[in-house]
Amino acid sequence: MDIPGWRKKIDDLDRRIVELLNARALAAKEIGRLKRNSELPIYEPVREKTIFENVNKANTGPLPNKDLQHIFERIIDVMRAIQRDEIVPDKGTPKTGGGTEFDVETNE
Amino acid sequence: MDIPGWRKKIDDLDRRIVELLNARALAAKEIGRLKRNSELPIYEPVREKTIFENVNKANTGPLPNKDLQHIFERIIDVMRAIQRDEIVPDKGTPKTGGGTEFDVETNE
Repeated sequence: MDIPGWRKKIDDLDRRIVELLNARALAAKEIGRLKRNSELPIYEPVREKTIFENVNKANTGPLPNKDLQHIFERIIDVMRAIQRDEIVPDKGTPKTGGGTEFDVETNE
Repeated sequence: MDIPGWRKKIDDLDRRIVELLNARALAAKEIGRLKRNSELPIYEPVREKTIFENVNKANTGPLPNKDLQHIFERIIDVMRAIQRDEIVPDKGTPKTGGGTEFDVETNE
């Protein structure tokens, strides 16, 4: 296959990755909604460790685990922000200096 | 669905994302091999613009385009390194101070 052919393949893979990332974001939002009623924290290090273990276990290469971890760190950062928005919907107006109702780990 | 149920769903999605990322890495390696014979540069800003356009076009939400772009920036960083390894296999020994044969954009 030539370079344009491989790029067409990559574009197709990217569209499927976008679909899965959006499905993942929906799940993160649902968890955020459930956390709102349970007062569980957004940042849960044990859960994040489980995510990386799952990813490494599923890895058959050629990407080394460290590269996948690098990508999933970014995915988790984005999802954590999505989840925070679900728990604290009014985070867009903190300029008035009011205290936050939840102890939110922003990681931004 | 409860939190453990959503997390099971996320773990399943992650395994599928890992599979697609590895397929993408394979394609990037193949392009690297083809570039080695054509002297095309690793860093091609026009191609990266096309990638983001394709991603935005495929996006149906709930993730905003800027979050997807944030994730794909990391994916592209990793893939560029993979491709560089394919073009310059001996990049692990630059300590001797020899000049590089290619004008490699490392982005590291």
